[in-house]
Amino acid sequence: MPNDLPPDLILDAQDEVTIRQDLVQVALGRRPADCLLRVGRLLDVATRTWLEDAEIAIRGRRIAYTGPAGTYTGTAREQQHRPTLAAVPGFGEVHKHIESAHLTPEHEAALVLPHGNTWTCEASHEFSNVNGTRNLEFWLMARQAGSPLKIFPLPGSAVPPTAYEGGGGYFDGADQAGFLRDSLMVAGLDEVMDWPAIHDAQNPSYARLWGMIGATLAQRGVVEGHGAGLRDLAAINAFAAAGLASDHEAWTAQEAWDKLRHGIFVQIRPHSMPDIIAGLLERGLQDWSQVAFATDDRSASDTLRMGATDYNVRLAIESGLPPEVAIQCVTLNPARHMRLTPYVGSLAPGRYADIVLLEDVASLQIAEVWADGKQVSQGAQYTGTLPKIDWPDWAVRTINLPRPAEASDFAIAAPESRTQVHAALLRPFHWADDFITTQLEVSDGQVQRDAARNITKFAVVDRYSGKGGTARMLWLGCGPATPDTAVGCTVAHDQHNIWVVGSSDAAMAQVVNKIRDNQGGWALATGGRIVADVRYEVGGLMTNRPAPDLDAEMAHLLAEGAKIDWLYEPTFSPRWFPGFPERLQFATLTCAPWRWVLVAPTQAVPQGFVNVQTGQTHPVVW
Amino acid sequence: MPNDLPPDLILDAQDEVTIRQDLVQVALGRRPADCLLRVGRLLDVATRTWLEDAEIAIRGRRIAYTGPAGTYTGTAREQQHRPTLAAVPGFGEVHKHIESAHLTPEHEAALVLPHGNTWTCEASHEFSNVNGTRNLEFWLMARQAGSPLKIFPLPGSAVPPTAYEGGGGYFDGADQAGFLRDSLMVAGLDEVMDWPAIHDAQNPSYARLWGMIGATLAQRGVVEGHGAGLRDLAAINAFAAAGLASDHEAWTAQEAWDKLRHGIFVQIRPHSMPDIIAGLLERGLQDWSQVAFATDDRSASDTLRMGATDYNVRLAIESGLPPEVAIQCVTLNPARHMRLTPYVGSLAPGRYADIVLLEDVASLQIAEVWADGKQVSQGAQYTGTLPKIDWPDWAVRTINLPRPAEASDFAIAAPESRTQVHAALLRPFHWADDFITTQLEVSDGQVQRDAARNITKFAVVDRYSGKGGTARMLWLGCGPATPDTAVGCTVAHDQHNIWVVGSSDAAMAQVVNKIRDNQGGWALATGGRIVADVRYEVGGLMTNRPAPDLDAEMAHLLAEGAKIDWLYEPTFSPRWFPGFPERLQFATLTCAPWRWVLVAPTQAVPQGFVNVQTGQTHPVVW
Repeated sequence: MPNDLPPDLILDAQDEVTIRQDLVQVALGRRPADCLLRVGRLLDVATRTWLEDAEIAIRGRRIAYTGPAGTYTGTAREQQHRPTLAAVPGFGEVHKHIESAHLTPEHEAALVLPHGNTWTCEASHEFSNVNGTRNLEFWLMARQAGSPLKIFPLPGSAVPPTAYEGGGGYFDGADQAGFLRDSLMVAGLDEVMDWPAIHDAQNPSYARLWGMIGATLAQRGVVEGHGAGLRDLAAINAFAAAGLASDHEAWTAQEAWDKLRHGIFVQIRPHSMPDIIAGLLERGLQDWSQVAFATDDRSASDTLRMGATDYNVRLAIESGLPPEVAIQCVTLNPARHMRLTPYVGSLAPGRYADIVLLEDVASLQIAEVWADGKQVSQGAQYTGTLPKIDWPDWAVRTINLPRPAEASDFAIAAPESRTQVHAALLRPFHWADDFITTQLEVSDGQVQRDAARNITKFAVVDRYSGKGGTARMLWLGCGPATPDTAVGCTVAHDQHNIWVVGSSDAAMAQVVNKIRDNQGGWALATGGRIVADVRYEVGGLMTNRPAPDLDAEMAHLLAEGAKIDWLYEPTFSPRWFPGFPERLQFATLTCAPWRWVLVAPTQAVPQGFVNVQTGQTHPVVW
Repeated sequence: MPNDLPPDLILDAQDEVTIRQDLVQVALGRRPADCLLRVGRLLDVATRTWLEDAEIAIRGRRIAYTGPAGTYTGTAREQQHRPTLAAVPGFGEVHKHIESAHLTPEHEAALVLPHGNTWTCEASHEFSNVNGTRNLEFWLMARQAGSPLKIFPLPGSAVPPTAYEGGGGYFDGADQAGFLRDSLMVAGLDEVMDWPAIHDAQNPSYARLWGMIGATLAQRGVVEGHGAGLRDLAAINAFAAAGLASDHEAWTAQEAWDKLRHGIFVQIRPHSMPDIIAGLLERGLQDWSQVAFATDDRSASDTLRMGATDYNVRLAIESGLPPEVAIQCVTLNPARHMRLTPYVGSLAPGRYADIVLLEDVASLQIAEVWADGKQVSQGAQYTGTLPKIDWPDWAVRTINLPRPAEASDFAIAAPESRTQVHAALLRPFHWADDFITTQLEVSDGQVQRDAARNITKFAVVDRYSGKGGTARMLWLGCGPATPDTAVGCTVAHDQHNIWVVGSSDAAMAQVVNKIRDNQGGWALATGGRIVADVRYEVGGLMTNRPAPDLDAEMAHLLAEGAKIDWLYEPTFSPRWFPGFPERLQFATLTCAPWRWVLVAPTQAVPQGFVNVQTGQTHPVVW
């Protein structure tokens, strides 16, 4: 930075004035630019047209000037020329949980920047549920230390996800008002997921959630929605009427179309993108201004393999969208929706100088990425600032268990003198109104698994309160068939307690204890020992290491996991596959369309078994 | 309104929660709608597609549900069917000075609602310069009393217009922070017009203006621009870099194109619309999402003759835009730009039930307009609520002159014992860097007019401070050639002191005194008497009467004006015509591209003659 200017890392209205006062002088040629970057052509996303042989004058981290080459009237300290490359704006993530990369923000930046992703609206309820108080501090720390990725944290409405859970955070309207007041980086309220708490005044989260919505509207923020499973017109209308401005959960073109046609900004995720884009084109959609692409959740390993936002754009092009429209869906459209147009989303003066330089537009081949006015990647290689951050205790000591787990913590006692019991069963992604019931054998007073019928034991351990309470029940179609085996993880959306599934109680205890030692992550135990673990030592969700290191650790877990026999049974989600049950991280969700779920024990739900749509509880065996 | 719901007239986040909680129940069919309106077809502006045979469930003032006819699952207290009509969203004005209609807001509503205009971003610096303190109160009063027009006041940055003027208002960053905090109706900061005060740190308004910009960004408001005369790329870049998000001053297609391509939201006004639209289409513009139409200034008489927003849309269609795109330019596009999408801009749940029912789409023939969920017009006839407002003294006593004016107030003394003087001349709309100089005769120690050379006297009388100071000089090419004649008005953009131009000092005094008696408006004196006047008794800018009454009074003024011979000389503005000099209302502007101007005397500028680009002053004769 020029010495007399603010650091320009975290948005601040006062700093903004100083920065723009200076930019005006640079634009007028009265003060020198730092760099004049000349490119083969430049995509103006406002008009969706190309400007051939263009130049961009950069000052500090911002764009001061754009125009045909040779028109800038000022001088520049440095000149760069990329005659064969096409410049497009840095890509934005309109809805992403960086936690799902399992990398801390500075390492996420190093991973995604070479893929063109220069700004991210962080859907922050994962970390917020671990430590709500430190949420903004956490998300802004890497940027404050110089990381070029702009992270705009949207405080999560799902903190806690439902009224039936407790954890490391609790946000209400007053908190949200404070967040919006405290930082201009806060664009709004993240995905309102607890649909029953919106439409049912009896729901115990009703006042909390509507309080957050009101606080967001009061400060001109954006209220993000999450309309999973909301496909009938009545529900879609109600969702829009509630003021939920967006949805990223459409699975079909008809659903996306119906939502778009009710004023809802649609954020398309890759898994349903080809169908949705083809279907919207079929229906005659020509104006894509209310559409963006969302990554939502993607692991570092998947990003290494597939790409980041660039993957989404490529998929959209393959699905039939012209490249320029696809690029609008990750630049201007999300910036406008999030009301961040003064700062990001286009190659225009006043915005951050975040530039993706393409070798080829149709295939979105990225040659270089610039962020904050400097080159930060060459090909796939990240060359930008990677600050070293010593994450404080509140970030790295988040597994609060009073003592090591024991096998008996996972035992399920049968009612006295019974040889058989009725048991409630859940499957992963079981979205029916009712749970499944079955009969199970009792041995030594304890309810037994039945691997032959695909039934094993699933538990959720409270890692926040310090009590270490364990909710356990029998689950169907998931977990190890191999004896004396268990796997578990602290990524347990969205409350992120510890889930563990196992063929023996002792193995389950082993897994929990390894996770406790590591302060988060995965553990896999079999034959009496831990055969693989993955460390998520930051918040129990992320690791403070480069993506390739994490990927290697994860690869080892998957390799060991492949040696185990896993139970499987199809269920409601088409994304639930046989083999190592990596997706169990999402099987503890409690938002729509979930009904019956297992959560960590609370006073209100001592066994942890509750219907989140109705608040009804039930014994796990009877 | 249902008794248990807020009045829903003025946006308020807490009320918004209550209203939307109720709307959700109505959308789900659990509570009855107030009205189910079935239409021949409905334009969804988000997808720019038509839904055939659609229904709209209305609750209170809002839309609860839209969908194909017969799909709403609830009941409705009333059903309406318009099988032959096409429903499109209520039209929005993205930038309009209601003051220029010269009607108070309730009468403006009655005038423009039959033309489909249901919401207006009020560019409020006119009234703010009369009474800044009461600005929000003034603009919200009619709505509060039940008028169906939604007025979103944007506090003016031009209060005062330049540092060289004083008046009835003074807004700085702290004021703007307060406005944005006080009311959700405030969308941002109105047109930043004082370009020298943006790019020149020495300009005495620099800190004030940047303070208002900073305060607006701090609360996620929109900073509106005014880029008149800014056509070179350096200036356009600087304008965008300053964070000025829009411009409504483009006169040519190239200018509009260059501004669009630099991230500036372009608001096209009718006078340049055919050229601009044709030129943008020629340049290949397919994505019109960054374009809206602006009325800016239009008198009630012109609206009666031409139409309101509907005129702009019709002109756009005639200029080559498809009707649906033209409609987006007055609905979704401006709502999105102004960040008002939760409330207006589309026929979607949660938004106000403001509906324009078209007999014919291509010709935009309006059959009915609904606002707040009720029909408010039938054909050209307004049938909605017209509240009777007794505007308080702070609105109707705004001409503060200590005593009647006298002929001697307009005399220009020559330096002692001179028979000739050098005189500075201005023309209306003289945008050159230098004023014009000439030599004039002196008689009885006073500088004389010279009608033969098109030179007469122009004065500006301070109507705010109570001192009644008068700035006077010789102007070229305007005013009466007829002897003993003068005309004047309190509409004197943007400070709105009294301007008066006359062939005799006595006639000038007569005009000022009539205006003083009327507390604002026009007066025309000739042959020793007032032959016509128009009363703008509210703020000296507006009248609290229906448009036809005002139009009749104005017609009389114009008829009397036509009997007078008027000086004329072409100047920079192509909108400056021979005949009755109605446009002199705009000849006292001090924003870009003006240089030398005449303002009411202040301590800093005792003769009122100042260059607003440089702050230089000069004697009017020497």
